[in-house]
Amino acid sequence: MDSSQSREYADGIARAARASAGILAGTTGSQRDAALMSCAKALEASRDKLLQSNQKDLARSEEFGLTPAMVKRLTLDDDRIDSMARALRDIAAQTDPVGQADAAYNRPNGLRIEKRRVPIGVVAIIFESRPNVTSDAAGLCLKSGNACILRGGKEALNSNLAIAEILRAGLADASLPRACVTVIDKLDHAVVPALCTADGLIDLIIPRGGRGLIEAVTKAATIPVIKHYDGICHVYVHADADLDMAERIAVNAKAQYPAVCNAMETLLVDAAVAEAFLPRAAKTLRARGVELRGCERSRAIVADMLEATEADWSREYLDLVLSVKVVDGLDAAIEHINTYSSRHTDAIVTSSIAAADRFVTNVDSSSVMVNASTRFADGGEYGLGAEIGISTDKLHARGPMGAADLTTYKWVVTGNGQVRG
Amino acid sequence: MDSSQSREYADGIARAARASAGILAGTTGSQRDAALMSCAKALEASRDKLLQSNQKDLARSEEFGLTPAMVKRLTLDDDRIDSMARALRDIAAQTDPVGQADAAYNRPNGLRIEKRRVPIGVVAIIFESRPNVTSDAAGLCLKSGNACILRGGKEALNSNLAIAEILRAGLADASLPRACVTVIDKLDHAVVPALCTADGLIDLIIPRGGRGLIEAVTKAATIPVIKHYDGICHVYVHADADLDMAERIAVNAKAQYPAVCNAMETLLVDAAVAEAFLPRAAKTLRARGVELRGCERSRAIVADMLEATEADWSREYLDLVLSVKVVDGLDAAIEHINTYSSRHTDAIVTSSIAAADRFVTNVDSSSVMVNASTRFADGGEYGLGAEIGISTDKLHARGPMGAADLTTYKWVVTGNGQVRG
Repeated sequence: MDSSQSREYADGIARAARASAGILAGTTGSQRDAALMSCAKALEASRDKLLQSNQKDLARSEEFGLTPAMVKRLTLDDDRIDSMARALRDIAAQTDPVGQADAAYNRPNGLRIEKRRVPIGVVAIIFESRPNVTSDAAGLCLKSGNACILRGGKEALNSNLAIAEILRAGLADASLPRACVTVIDKLDHAVVPALCTADGLIDLIIPRGGRGLIEAVTKAATIPVIKHYDGICHVYVHADADLDMAERIAVNAKAQYPAVCNAMETLLVDAAVAEAFLPRAAKTLRARGVELRGCERSRAIVADMLEATEADWSREYLDLVLSVKVVDGLDAAIEHINTYSSRHTDAIVTSSIAAADRFVTNVDSSSVMVNASTRFADGGEYGLGAEIGISTDKLHARGPMGAADLTTYKWVVTGNGQVRG
Repeated sequence: MDSSQSREYADGIARAARASAGILAGTTGSQRDAALMSCAKALEASRDKLLQSNQKDLARSEEFGLTPAMVKRLTLDDDRIDSMARALRDIAAQTDPVGQADAAYNRPNGLRIEKRRVPIGVVAIIFESRPNVTSDAAGLCLKSGNACILRGGKEALNSNLAIAEILRAGLADASLPRACVTVIDKLDHAVVPALCTADGLIDLIIPRGGRGLIEAVTKAATIPVIKHYDGICHVYVHADADLDMAERIAVNAKAQYPAVCNAMETLLVDAAVAEAFLPRAAKTLRARGVELRGCERSRAIVADMLEATEADWSREYLDLVLSVKVVDGLDAAIEHINTYSSRHTDAIVTSSIAAADRFVTNVDSSSVMVNASTRFADGGEYGLGAEIGISTDKLHARGPMGAADLTTYKWVVTGNGQVRG
């Protein structure tokens, strides 16, 4: 497609989504929950069809050069389909975020002012990765009254289209428009920029994936974007840390699941405790298979560390690799984090209230932890239920995003004939 | 300046603002309030210097081709300086929005989760119009703990720079960095795009002014933008309206102050009451000097109306001109509004609960009014105190924006050594 055909294609989809959003805006929470249940049922009932479509994608995985880990993420089986359906039922069981009032009060002139939560409208999610994201994202958008447009990766196209067809059948069973959920079936290069500039039709773009994808979307977009960059997360071991706790947290943050965005990538150790902490921590981390790359001062304390280069401080390894730096006190730790962190999640281990307060106040990240593993930065762990992702932006939602973060508000003003003097 | 010089200039200013934002993040509300009081005092004490700078701008107003109305808005006098100082003191008197918790709860594993309000960081405001915006915007940013970069129009450059110098002296007196407030002194064309792409240094851009300015900023920006478009506001007179009330509201919405964004531009009248309502409303509106432009059906009821063209439905007159349309019922009114409204403020006049509910739910605007004049859409009228403007965006803030809307949140997670299993 050339760019005018892409424009037409994107606008056609966006217009249908916008019309559905208008209908969704008038639904009750129980109608939307019934639709979620109906979608869950449809997923279970269409298991075979879905597995066949997934097989088509798997058959082409070599052609797309997927690694074994990527093939594993792409593969659907009965368990995964069960858990997709379960996630939709869990979302249905959550409190309805629509219609809640952030504030409601009377003004002296008798006007009633209410700041009421409403759906955002049409949300486009551009993602790579697993097919279950298609179903989770559609479910969260439906819960929050938004129509969604989902543009997944080419390697999962058949699976994603099959999931969308099944969910649309579920929507139709619940008397909601099929265009509440649309998977983009044309993956031409020009379609993403066309979606990103569909002003007045699409209200929000959420890109999830590699840095290149997110930067391209941000550059092209004239509508709001909430970026989900990956995590360069830090743990800082303060001079007043309980070193047993610090070791437990550091090992968990790095080694429990290194391939995810809330895993630690850099360990900062206060100079006051570096000689006491680093040798024992290095030993335990190495026993868990972690490769250490240290600054000069770390390497003077722990033998056989590789040298950390400037580039290591900005690197998201997503692997059993850790950069280590000795810092001169709390302010140096905060400065390092505010320079190199991706503003995802950063933790301090300390027994000092003053140090914890200063860290929490001055570290400019979406989640700031005191005496807990960075691995807790997650919608489920925060009690949000399913999550659409973890925003590394400051606006409009920050950190783990659940259904409530897919709403905005409107001012509802009720009077009995007031005019302004 | 060429584009690399503009980049360097913008980045230099943004880096200084970012450093100040780091210091502001660690201040208490009373420190920021003391700085606001000190700025108010500095404004009053530097009255003469400010009036002299304003004279320089006024002397060039002909060269810039300003209309008498624009010259009036540009002109400072003792009263206006008093009211700028008073606004800063009013802002100081407001509740501190920083540090408030949107939510705070314990998780089953003992983790304490708090969603805490924090400053956004560095906010750039690009505006045309009155010099008092410079002082109000700086005051709201300071209140909410943000550093601000203000880029005003060339016709007010001397006044804006003088205000900034005075406020910076006030900041210094209160031991806060001068770079908390910066007015851009180089108005080269390439500076705005450079500000709009200062990723990692500036967190938010707020353009206020004409459509051309806002569109240019949106197109250039890679950081979040909150747009303040003008208002194409509607009043819909429903079949069940109290016609006395409807007339009072329509006249107030149109004629009380037609030059502002929350004035009505289109009157929608239900066909069921058009014959009863339009003649009397037309008479009163015309007595107030309003020119009427009607659809075919309106013109069949009221003599001597001009014909409204398709373009009139999207026009912001900001003047004593009103387009009038007869619509077939509530859904037609909602559809017209969702097609032509700028999503600013739209009102229904009705005595029917069902009609009001349907209107409020389905009209996709930042303020939706029942039985009240659109003129109430205003930060002061909503009880927010001073306002940074009225957002026509849905994210992150919508409608009148006060100091609290210049904050975001961070997740503060406190544990006692929890690790993830």
